[in-house]
Amino acid sequence: PAMEDNVAGWPSVYESPAYYWQGEETLKVPRSMHLENRDKVIQGIRAKGFTSGIALLAGGETKYRNDTDHEELFRQESNFHYLFGVKDADCFGVLNVSTGKSALFVPRLPADYAIWMGKIASLADFKSKYEVDEVLYVDDIPSFVQGTKPDLIFVYSGQNSDSKAMGVPAKFEGIEQYKLEEQALHEALFEARVTKSVKELEVLKYTNRLSSEAHIAVMQQVRAGMMEYQMEALFNHYCYYVGGMRKQSYTAICGCGPNGAVLHYGHGGAPNNRRLRAGAMVLNDMGAEYYCYASDITCSFPVGGRFTEEQRGIYEAVLDASLAVMRAMRPGVAWGAMHELAERVLVERLLGLGYLSGTVDELVAAEIPALFMPHGLGHLMGIDTHDVGGYPAGAVRATRPGLRSLRMQRDLLEGMVVTVEPGCYFVPALLEPAFDHPVQGPLLCAARLRPLLGFGGVRIEDDVAVTVGGIELLTTVPRTVAEIEAAMSGRDFP
Amino acid sequence: PAMEDNVAGWPSVYESPAYYWQGEETLKVPRSMHLENRDKVIQGIRAKGFTSGIALLAGGETKYRNDTDHEELFRQESNFHYLFGVKDADCFGVLNVSTGKSALFVPRLPADYAIWMGKIASLADFKSKYEVDEVLYVDDIPSFVQGTKPDLIFVYSGQNSDSKAMGVPAKFEGIEQYKLEEQALHEALFEARVTKSVKELEVLKYTNRLSSEAHIAVMQQVRAGMMEYQMEALFNHYCYYVGGMRKQSYTAICGCGPNGAVLHYGHGGAPNNRRLRAGAMVLNDMGAEYYCYASDITCSFPVGGRFTEEQRGIYEAVLDASLAVMRAMRPGVAWGAMHELAERVLVERLLGLGYLSGTVDELVAAEIPALFMPHGLGHLMGIDTHDVGGYPAGAVRATRPGLRSLRMQRDLLEGMVVTVEPGCYFVPALLEPAFDHPVQGPLLCAARLRPLLGFGGVRIEDDVAVTVGGIELLTTVPRTVAEIEAAMSGRDFP
Ligand SMILES: [Mn+2]
Ligand SMILES: [Mn+2]
Repeated sequence: PAMEDNVAGWPSVYESPAYYWQGEETLKVPRSMHLENRDKVIQGIRAKGFTSGIALLAGGETKYRNDTDHEELFRQESNFHYLFGVKDADCFGVLNVSTGKSALFVPRLPADYAIWMGKIASLADFKSKYEVDEVLYVDDIPSFVQGTKPDLIFVYSGQNSDSKAMGVPAKFEGIEQYKLEEQALHEALFEARVTKSVKELEVLKYTNRLSSEAHIAVMQQVRAGMMEYQMEALFNHYCYYVGGMRKQSYTAICGCGPNGAVLHYGHGGAPNNRRLRAGAMVLNDMGAEYYCYASDITCSFPVGGRFTEEQRGIYEAVLDASLAVMRAMRPGVAWGAMHELAERVLVERLLGLGYLSGTVDELVAAEIPALFMPHGLGHLMGIDTHDVGGYPAGAVRATRPGLRSLRMQRDLLEGMVVTVEPGCYFVPALLEPAFDHPVQGPLLCAARLRPLLGFGGVRIEDDVAVTVGGIELLTTVPRTVAEIEAAMSGRDFP
Repeated sequence: PAMEDNVAGWPSVYESPAYYWQGEETLKVPRSMHLENRDKVIQGIRAKGFTSGIALLAGGETKYRNDTDHEELFRQESNFHYLFGVKDADCFGVLNVSTGKSALFVPRLPADYAIWMGKIASLADFKSKYEVDEVLYVDDIPSFVQGTKPDLIFVYSGQNSDSKAMGVPAKFEGIEQYKLEEQALHEALFEARVTKSVKELEVLKYTNRLSSEAHIAVMQQVRAGMMEYQMEALFNHYCYYVGGMRKQSYTAICGCGPNGAVLHYGHGGAPNNRRLRAGAMVLNDMGAEYYCYASDITCSFPVGGRFTEEQRGIYEAVLDASLAVMRAMRPGVAWGAMHELAERVLVERLLGLGYLSGTVDELVAAEIPALFMPHGLGHLMGIDTHDVGGYPAGAVRATRPGLRSLRMQRDLLEGMVVTVEPGCYFVPALLEPAFDHPVQGPLLCAARLRPLLGFGGVRIEDDVAVTVGGIELLTTVPRTVAEIEAAMSGRDFP
């Protein structure tokens, strides 16, 4: 009702209540989530021994395509969304470490903005909407900072372990007069974002529920002869039309047959543009975002909805790896050990199916698992699909294939949300050299594996929350062969 | 058949034939289009008196979201697409002004790219696919240039009249040894892109046909109570699923009621998130792109599909302006004069409807038209929605409201594609001050206009090609009130 039409019938887009909502059956996210998030970051900075100073953050900037006036659809910078939940571009924010209060700085817009972009929200509108202690204009920052006389300004600078990129510290005219601290804010933000609050978990459950429904809708409409991108189109449509999710969390990977063995297929250079072939495996890695929170789900199934014996064997090898990991996950467990567990279960099953020879220990020692699963078992997920905090200070990246691709090297904590995504792929670029390798070659049954070089791959990717005693599965798609075959024959799931 | 599965059943994404095609019923675009485009630009540089030298161009770069590893879906830089049609990021290109030959430079990819991103195309693959004279690696540029010993290197630098942004010239290590020319390439590119070749027109007809069908699909599914963004979702889905169009040309504007008077509604800060109200006007400005070629179409209609007398009057005033312009358009006609024609027809009709008083001349002299249509009549359209070349050297921007917003100030040429998009909006930020204005106030019938401040607006936007004797209409949506009411009642259109 609060978002229903008001008396005049046409509320301004800025006159929305204390939650984010896309209407209809979509989720209402309380804005107070960000108040909690800000408190958590401020506590984090204090825990490093700082008792005063202010943290200054820059929101995402308006971006244009090259030198044209094509404005890209804005998506808030992730840390800024975490702290403020503001959907407008070109804002700044301040957290006061001593008082715990927050201020938001919004662009001073020209009067004709109202003609082109809509009613200009007043500072009071922003204040009531975003529940910050103060709202000022961006050009007020220098005088605001002067007024607070901070002994230290915390700015965002530090490395993202997935991208290796450094954070770009916020700036304002005259900032050079102040003493800057460039570590604490980055660390406090990443540590805060590593575990999710109850309110954040609600959002991630929603993104997973809707994206799961969309995956099922795709599976039920897949037919031989369709183009791969038509699966992406069906998925996007369900997420947006039903779920109010305008953006995907990442570029969809919809690979049929050998394309399923191209791990980042779907990008601009390989845009899901092949035809689906009857009976071939499909690997669909798709997830939509709601209110800047991600989902990241992969379903693998045969076109036509009936597994061959060979497909079933390989699929169930991956599923067993997934189930073994999920059964073992709980707070305190090292994520690297879970990756190794998945590897062992996978090669044990492939051994049982006759694709490999030797023992599990021999196979692991010869680095056979990474030939079939070259990527890491999973990663933290939240506002970023590959969420921050996977490598805390001191964590060292492994050098072994597979393990070195892991985006998280730390023990599980209650409140983490991670993906569990074991896979088994038949990648010619990996297997062909291995057949001739002196140590690996004899462990591979080339006669069985060579015919699979066009098979593609299987990935089973779920998003799970770590709970006090184990995990909660957020993803709700058919996973057993029987469930998939039933859903694809048109039966409801669950 | 050329894009059908090959003998091995699974062609690499790079082994595609001499055209771009998304399969099924989508359009095949011959790669030779780019050969023509390159020749046109080389001729343009020569026409400026240069007989030698090379032009160096940089393609679009891979982009990430802030400091994360979230890779944005790549879309080629527009000039580079025009010349080369290459869908991969981080390439360079060279045009040799004396020989007329072209070279493409592609990134040298690490071997493990094949695991993550797909088969690495060889230089020969690129050469046969893109029909350039030579393909080398990006790191070969310095030695390649040294080999050609150019007396001049033409680089891309100059202002885009829509964005005001300057082009960023391509660079390579050692470029400072050469003499650079920073005007000719920019001018030649913009002049070339101003008129479209027969092959380009085919692509623009396709984008228009498919986007028109998608608009009709939306109109036939609109119901009171839906959210505005559900219209966007339906549109996107049709364009991608049926038309193979993964990207929209611009962020969709789907405004119901007063939102229709917010000219750039739909952006991240106002994301089409209001409910559709029975009987209210809807303004949908949406267009999808195929092979980086745009469409830009606006349909306006009432929720429920039946116009009231008032809606019909305002709608037909805009339609009359559109028809008057289309009847007058032909090569040699000044675009500013077409804008003024639209303004005159619009106020003449509003006068007839009793919303204004005085004479057309008085209304124009008092700048009344721009109160109802603050934007320009239309713009060039091609690879960019607001395509380049609207203000050739010497063209001066007008100062009068409305006219000064025109993105093109030049005479029509055969082969131009322009939008014709008159509109009539009831913008409180414009009309409320005007009611009290000493000159404008007496010409406005405030008693009739005040109740319309929640009406929103009407825009009718078509894409047209200028032909030798007039125009060809590319857009194929219902335009008369009778056509719209018939289509929305479920009847086929056309
Ligand atoms: Mn993942
Ligand atoms: Mn337009």
